[in-house]
Amino acid sequence: MAKAVLTPQAEDFPAWYQDVIARAELAESGPARGSMVIRPWGYAVWELMQADMDRRIKATGAQNVAFPMLIPMSFLEKEKQHVEGFSPELAVVTHGGGEELAEPLALRPTSETVINHYFAKWVQSHRDLPLALNLWNNVVRWELRPRLFLRTTEFLWQEGHTAHATYEDAVEETRRMLGVYRRFMEESLAISVVAGEKSPGERFAGADHTFTCEALMRDGKALQMGTSHNLGHNFARAFGIQYLDPAGERRHAATTSWGTSTRMIGGLIMVHGDDHGLRLPPAIAPHQVVVLQLDEDAEVAGSARRIEAELRGAGVRAHVDDRTHTSFGRRSVDWELKGVPVRIEVGAREVASGRATLVRRDDRSKSAVPLAGVAGAAAGLLAEIQQALLEQSRRFREEHTQPVTDFDEFAQRVGGGGLFLAAWSGAEESERVLGERTGATIRCIVDAEPPASTCLITGEPARHTVLIGRAY
Amino acid sequence: MAKAVLTPQAEDFPAWYQDVIARAELAESGPARGSMVIRPWGYAVWELMQADMDRRIKATGAQNVAFPMLIPMSFLEKEKQHVEGFSPELAVVTHGGGEELAEPLALRPTSETVINHYFAKWVQSHRDLPLALNLWNNVVRWELRPRLFLRTTEFLWQEGHTAHATYEDAVEETRRMLGVYRRFMEESLAISVVAGEKSPGERFAGADHTFTCEALMRDGKALQMGTSHNLGHNFARAFGIQYLDPAGERRHAATTSWGTSTRMIGGLIMVHGDDHGLRLPPAIAPHQVVVLQLDEDAEVAGSARRIEAELRGAGVRAHVDDRTHTSFGRRSVDWELKGVPVRIEVGAREVASGRATLVRRDDRSKSAVPLAGVAGAAAGLLAEIQQALLEQSRRFREEHTQPVTDFDEFAQRVGGGGLFLAAWSGAEESERVLGERTGATIRCIVDAEPPASTCLITGEPARHTVLIGRAY
Repeated sequence: MAKAVLTPQAEDFPAWYQDVIARAELAESGPARGSMVIRPWGYAVWELMQADMDRRIKATGAQNVAFPMLIPMSFLEKEKQHVEGFSPELAVVTHGGGEELAEPLALRPTSETVINHYFAKWVQSHRDLPLALNLWNNVVRWELRPRLFLRTTEFLWQEGHTAHATYEDAVEETRRMLGVYRRFMEESLAISVVAGEKSPGERFAGADHTFTCEALMRDGKALQMGTSHNLGHNFARAFGIQYLDPAGERRHAATTSWGTSTRMIGGLIMVHGDDHGLRLPPAIAPHQVVVLQLDEDAEVAGSARRIEAELRGAGVRAHVDDRTHTSFGRRSVDWELKGVPVRIEVGAREVASGRATLVRRDDRSKSAVPLAGVAGAAAGLLAEIQQALLEQSRRFREEHTQPVTDFDEFAQRVGGGGLFLAAWSGAEESERVLGERTGATIRCIVDAEPPASTCLITGEPARHTVLIGRAY
Repeated sequence: MAKAVLTPQAEDFPAWYQDVIARAELAESGPARGSMVIRPWGYAVWELMQADMDRRIKATGAQNVAFPMLIPMSFLEKEKQHVEGFSPELAVVTHGGGEELAEPLALRPTSETVINHYFAKWVQSHRDLPLALNLWNNVVRWELRPRLFLRTTEFLWQEGHTAHATYEDAVEETRRMLGVYRRFMEESLAISVVAGEKSPGERFAGADHTFTCEALMRDGKALQMGTSHNLGHNFARAFGIQYLDPAGERRHAATTSWGTSTRMIGGLIMVHGDDHGLRLPPAIAPHQVVVLQLDEDAEVAGSARRIEAELRGAGVRAHVDDRTHTSFGRRSVDWELKGVPVRIEVGAREVASGRATLVRRDDRSKSAVPLAGVAGAAAGLLAEIQQALLEQSRRFREEHTQPVTDFDEFAQRVGGGGLFLAAWSGAEESERVLGERTGATIRCIVDAEPPASTCLITGEPARHTVLIGRAY
């Protein structure tokens, strides 16, 4: 066995995270503070995530569009809470074409303001509703403590924006997209998430309600993986989005927005990765199967290519690694680091014996399989690996979620990581207390019914059961 | 017949162009000067262009990546000609996170500087070459005379960047990508182009050689549709891209870059559009066939859906327009404006007679076709329409390309539009004279062999035959 190429997770999880990103060649830091270069392997994962999510988003009836990155400051100032929330994170263009601009332009931190401005132009009648648009683009939020994929000054994402005739329609849309996100994360990323509403302290600036999908990383910290916001009439009032209803009455539309970003790649790494590198769910693995050609030999090469052709014929993303000038050890470590779900090893010995070696990345198990059946066996493993990763993620989250009723006990245990289920009063002040005393936050409300016990933080009567944890 | 909904091309071509973009709901101006909102129909065309081009680019071996939008000014200043060329067009971020930045950051006008900086890190050995990366992103070039799709301050594009062991490899790559672009434009956009080298006055800032695909719009003006640059050793020297060759010698790599943008959509409009709107080539039409359901009737609806299903089964992008509350006239004009290649009209009368009406967008011909065979007939027309549009584009360009040998005669005729073939000395000063006296530019060099006649502009001995015209 090759010796460890990564800092072990148990030794230093943040160092392990950096190591994986570097060694799997996923990304590296850009020249400007907090910026990121996404390298071919990382970007190929993102492209598969995009294609998958794009199909799901379009299936809800949303259409893709593009909006400008440069937003006049006056637009941002129209919705009071929104500008308060985003002002500290803005990057501002003050000069263009060699001259100082009359009005500075912000780089979009998110596009509600510019899109709701156009909604006001495009929405005139109830027949124009619902209107559902989605954007794949880059946004900028100034980041003082950047971390690749998790917090970068510029990141790639999709942001959806919709307008509806009624508040109830907006509620339904917000929930629908939360469901789309949850299913994508579970079915494609194999990440078990808890979906629920955010507490007021964690709400999107300008939203009536924010919903989230929360996942648990292997170091015990939570990660917000995607959010869906019911903006109610806030932006419709600020931007004047009005329509004539069937009775000829002028009414304000209700709007929503929802987004997921390259941050999910950070989650993917920290949920599935182990001390040998990344473990990619087959659904979003750029190569689902790598055929490692061990020897520079025509018969071996032919055998590898036949396996690749058979896999591709079965719709599997297969790749032959024929870099026989590089050592077997280096190459197998490389594909382990990159998280390729299945590896098939074929050399002169395998051709002679008629059996190839099949290696699963998820449990690192190896088996000898007849050459004639190895492509079929590999293809058959993919659904099993996808399911196994989701199951591990679910089991890990469940095993690291515990109910708590005593604050002091909670404060002692929270440092060990994991998620905590607790009763909460709903008082906004209590969120500040929680954060200051434990470094933890309410990740989401998991039950709208008042729980039996009193509030973990204040001891007041409780209104909700909430999930609490330290988070990225 | 509905009366004209667009300014006729012959009356005012720029007004016609604006009208088509507005009425076909392709795009509109953004809030900041020169910015653009791309609406669902325009963006769907762009997505099909992207997917098509992406396949072609990946087939050459290039891999997609993402690089940051924010580039330190010091990076741009490393290649002297590059910074001179782009400085007047830069947008500059001076503030981030509420503070003034120590070093201002430019919004990328193009990514050579940041990519070649990373090439210097990633390229160490001849084994690392060639390295071919492609980016789909947004860039900003400050635009004083913006025009939707043609000149916008922010635009969407792909930019490819490659590094090679030898200058000859870079030459070959530059030519290869020019060919990829030409074939995409002809095969998918159905736009006949002239591919050739740019004169020094039109070269990319920092390139040794720039190659271009030039198309002729229906108003007689040329449009540069895509460019491929051989950057030689210029950026490799500026950024220190060096590798060890097989003999252990340290050498500079040679680099290239190549790009195409949403500007091509402007070309698509102006090459194929007519007084009734857009005419989309089937290869990039979001709906290739629209089935117009004329009556609110179960049997008619059933018939329309069966036709749609049959078309989709044959791999055709089909769409049923069932908005029977909107008039037939309004809906047929709408799909004409949007340029849908084939329309099938099915109402109660058609169901009773067993014959639907089939309408081609390219020549606006109509025919009555048995209902049972109409899907097959529509599908069969698509390749024919694709070819017909390319042929018309080629014929128009050829008919409006004329040889000239006398400058005064040329100066008189150039106002009428079209392209001119002329002998040219190669003297840089002559390009300035040409521009100042006629408003025209050398679009590209079409023949490397010295022509028989003397230079059109200077009367000196000629070195090249060039294509000249006024351009967007």
